[in-house]
Amino acid sequence: MAVATNPLLDDRDVEVLLDEVLDLGSLLSLPYFADHDRHTVGAVIAEARRFGREVLYPAYRELDLAPPRLVDGRVVVHPRMHELWRQMVAMDLVAAPRPNAVGGQQLPLVITTLATAYLMAGNCAAYGYLGLTQGAAHLIEAFGDAHLRDEYMARMYRGEWTGTMALTEPQAGSSLSDVATTATPTADGHYLIRGSKIFISGGDHDFADNVVHMTLARIAGAPAGIKGVSLFCVPKRRLEGGALVDNDVAVAGVIHKIGWRGLPSLALNYGEGDDCHGWLVGEPHRGISYMFQMMNEARLMVGLNGVSTASVAYQEAVAYAKTRPQGRPLAAKDPATPQIPIIAHADVRRMLLRQRAIVTGGLALLVKTAWYADVAGHGADADRARAGLLLDLLTPIAKSFPAERGFEANALAVQVHGCYGYSSEYPVESWLRDQKLNTIHEGTTGIQALDLLGRRAVAGGGAALRAWIEEVATTCARAADAGVPAAQIEAVRDASQRVGALTMELAGRGLRGDADGMLLHASDYLELFSIAAVAWQWLELAAVAVRGLAGGASGAKASHYRVLRAAAQYWIATEVPRIDHLARLCASAEDSYAMVAADDF
Amino acid sequence: MAVATNPLLDDRDVEVLLDEVLDLGSLLSLPYFADHDRHTVGAVIAEARRFGREVLYPAYRELDLAPPRLVDGRVVVHPRMHELWRQMVAMDLVAAPRPNAVGGQQLPLVITTLATAYLMAGNCAAYGYLGLTQGAAHLIEAFGDAHLRDEYMARMYRGEWTGTMALTEPQAGSSLSDVATTATPTADGHYLIRGSKIFISGGDHDFADNVVHMTLARIAGAPAGIKGVSLFCVPKRRLEGGALVDNDVAVAGVIHKIGWRGLPSLALNYGEGDDCHGWLVGEPHRGISYMFQMMNEARLMVGLNGVSTASVAYQEAVAYAKTRPQGRPLAAKDPATPQIPIIAHADVRRMLLRQRAIVTGGLALLVKTAWYADVAGHGADADRARAGLLLDLLTPIAKSFPAERGFEANALAVQVHGCYGYSSEYPVESWLRDQKLNTIHEGTTGIQALDLLGRRAVAGGGAALRAWIEEVATTCARAADAGVPAAQIEAVRDASQRVGALTMELAGRGLRGDADGMLLHASDYLELFSIAAVAWQWLELAAVAVRGLAGGASGAKASHYRVLRAAAQYWIATEVPRIDHLARLCASAEDSYAMVAADDF
Repeated sequence: MAVATNPLLDDRDVEVLLDEVLDLGSLLSLPYFADHDRHTVGAVIAEARRFGREVLYPAYRELDLAPPRLVDGRVVVHPRMHELWRQMVAMDLVAAPRPNAVGGQQLPLVITTLATAYLMAGNCAAYGYLGLTQGAAHLIEAFGDAHLRDEYMARMYRGEWTGTMALTEPQAGSSLSDVATTATPTADGHYLIRGSKIFISGGDHDFADNVVHMTLARIAGAPAGIKGVSLFCVPKRRLEGGALVDNDVAVAGVIHKIGWRGLPSLALNYGEGDDCHGWLVGEPHRGISYMFQMMNEARLMVGLNGVSTASVAYQEAVAYAKTRPQGRPLAAKDPATPQIPIIAHADVRRMLLRQRAIVTGGLALLVKTAWYADVAGHGADADRARAGLLLDLLTPIAKSFPAERGFEANALAVQVHGCYGYSSEYPVESWLRDQKLNTIHEGTTGIQALDLLGRRAVAGGGAALRAWIEEVATTCARAADAGVPAAQIEAVRDASQRVGALTMELAGRGLRGDADGMLLHASDYLELFSIAAVAWQWLELAAVAVRGLAGGASGAKASHYRVLRAAAQYWIATEVPRIDHLARLCASAEDSYAMVAADDF
Repeated sequence: MAVATNPLLDDRDVEVLLDEVLDLGSLLSLPYFADHDRHTVGAVIAEARRFGREVLYPAYRELDLAPPRLVDGRVVVHPRMHELWRQMVAMDLVAAPRPNAVGGQQLPLVITTLATAYLMAGNCAAYGYLGLTQGAAHLIEAFGDAHLRDEYMARMYRGEWTGTMALTEPQAGSSLSDVATTATPTADGHYLIRGSKIFISGGDHDFADNVVHMTLARIAGAPAGIKGVSLFCVPKRRLEGGALVDNDVAVAGVIHKIGWRGLPSLALNYGEGDDCHGWLVGEPHRGISYMFQMMNEARLMVGLNGVSTASVAYQEAVAYAKTRPQGRPLAAKDPATPQIPIIAHADVRRMLLRQRAIVTGGLALLVKTAWYADVAGHGADADRARAGLLLDLLTPIAKSFPAERGFEANALAVQVHGCYGYSSEYPVESWLRDQKLNTIHEGTTGIQALDLLGRRAVAGGGAALRAWIEEVATTCARAADAGVPAAQIEAVRDASQRVGALTMELAGRGLRGDADGMLLHASDYLELFSIAAVAWQWLELAAVAVRGLAGGASGAKASHYRVLRAAAQYWIATEVPRIDHLARLCASAEDSYAMVAADDF
């Protein structure tokens, strides 16, 4: 029924980002990345591509159809997941960006981002275990002591055990200050953990010996709120005398999710038998700030998942639209003529180009964000702080844009398939289900909006924002050099300046004590900033495309440039003009929903 | 887990539409509706409300979880459906708007629309059988001969048999001119039907004795294309000597849909044994024009379903938001204070008010459309033609707006529920699945857009459009009388005039032979017209609300008016300004997706 193979991502998009948009050479010349060159990083991506297409994607449907089950209190996953895990681990990706000293490969995040996109597009649930394990191990690497690093981090980086992030409780989702799980110190150095967590992805399974829960809890006597939350390493089984024994983390239930169905989401009860040991990571009461490392990484992973999930559906929709005959051109009404493929209809091409604008624009943004992360971590000293500011600024956008617009793209991919898209015999509906989680987990879109406007865009007196406006200006200059139409360049430049001016205006409101007024349209602010940020990336891509076409590209390369050029035009013509309206809403603090009392609903 | 009861619709919305927006008295004074008064029509709605809430809604989940199965070549539905069907039929709704002469009650469509909304919101799949039966019987009533009326229509109106619309074939979905099912005349008056249909909703089941398929097929020797398609009545079982015998309509497969799971969607094979009898309805080769009656009715039903499906989810989201505690006000960071219900957060109220704007605005538009249908069919002679023009003009909008925006509203209802919304233990995800079909069936949104701009908006030299602009002007005058802010009135008036001017401009392009350029942005045209049409309805509601509040309304009535006033402000402030941008796209024929060759993708 479905197209038998799916390329998952457009390979040329990946090549263009690596070789024409970014200055990869300058990145690879940094000492931290000294082991790598264009050839080796290309091989990493090629291997992920192959594995995504040939192994993960063919297993996607099976995992979706037979989600993990609770058997005798433990989670049993699809048998195929056992072998997928072994194969993923063998690709050496868990610790790929981490230092050689901890078993990593010191790969740029730019490269692991692109490699991961293929894995996520192939099978988001299967990849999920790996991403969570990576984040959990990295937390211990950054903040844990030697015991935790040896006993837990190393095994997770080797893929022997997996990891989770255990933050949410039934009463503490968006509000982590309400975490109520307790940790009681013992004389033996560990703590006794008691409490309940919920929505713990990958919280149990049967394909590895152990699961390590990076768990937020409160030490007895800790201050109320966020400043009294500590981070603990709490394994499913603990090592005693060289053997793994049960650590009293019970699976209280499997939550039946509508997507990501290969990855269980669990309710966990810690310490029902008063025998759940946890080890403090770092200092007491600093758990939230530590966890933010994992959350920031996880937010970029969610954004990348949004891009990947939209991408695989887009690829499916393109293939379907090229092969499904239906109807005739507007001007050719002779019913005796053969039908044409639906891609020949303007509105179908509109739906495809819109998906493409979201997918490739989102991917470019994620890769650019990874670039800033690479420079912030390993760049020349003079470059690090600025890159860190940009990374921090762009993270909520890179998380929420692919989630929100990716869902729209996935709905369009269903729409292109018509009634067939509404049938579970075609895979396109499953990605729509998968995508919906991305606007919710790791901070809802509403939380991202408050974080962006209330914190990141105004931090340091607007230094991050100024740096971003400079980056846009650099792109504009490059686009002008390449011969991109001036109107497109102006539109993007104006958009970045509009974002700057609006931010200053809203920040002023906040400084005058009106935080509610400042943040009332935070969601509109997030949306307009996202449109502008993606337009900036499209301008980069337009520059590449225009230069390439002017340089006489032909064949498939020229086709690719033409699509990029058209998608850039599409985004700048159809989305950028919306910024003006959204900015007015923010600035006017339009008060319709502010003024309705809760009881009136 | 889920809220135990759900009101399905806001009862006050229904009352306000009936008693304050519409002049129901003038409608009920028409001779056709002479049997009814405010009391009796209120009782019809009250009974549907009760049945929807107490019977259909509690059965919704069961039907979703256990969809129809194919057993020995026939479809077996959920056992509960048997009793639901009997109860729905007992409510006498199948023929409710039809004349007494055919067993109907001569109820205004305004009333059946509101009653039906409760049924659809309670259980769209269960209602689906009834809606399809109504449409099929009405086709025979309008175009069938006495034999068909006696043998089929009467039994369907009585609910003894059910009906379907059998248009789509594997190669003929949006393109009905490609229908290939054949009908060969016999000496006995019937035709022998051969062919395959697909996506036939309610195409088989086991709760009634027979299913009557209103089937498009081609008589041997008919012209190619749409002008060679005839309409046939093809029962699952035919009457022979007073007994029902099999009529050779085989169920070739059940399509596994992602929503509407209580209603099977089937592939049917006619005449595998060369013994499928069909009876011509009306004249040969006029099937498409007949079917358009059913399709126009079905499109309004789809729109109403969109509203209803968004409404039940909105009600669920409001109830959840009022009771789910999470977080604290921006200004109150003391973690020792209790958490507040999430409805207290501005962004949650934004999501709720946006849903409300879509739901109530959509319902008002559907009810207004039903009003035009009532006047077109039964009004004073002088009023009929104009009402018919307005009905015709608004039908694609009333179909597609609730489908497209309803899907957005349903996604917001999930979002309000956070991770819980992503779980199938809460019902809110199921309505998101249900809703997705509405942008596809009975003509995709793309088809509606072409139909609106290419045909309906320009028909009769723009007479329908001029009538609509007059209707908007009347509403503006009413709103001014009531004291609605002048800026809101101006915005809606300007929007209607912008639609008019744009339509003339695009029509001119078409007249000059550039149909492609005229229709390139048909989807944007549909969207901007929809925004304007819903704004028109919100202005009506704002007038009612402002007048009611000025008149000293108190308590729940005042609460309701305040929500309406706020939602009107929201829609006019956040959506109407988008019209300008969309109109520019249409007028400029922005060519990004036009210029990409299919092969370039």
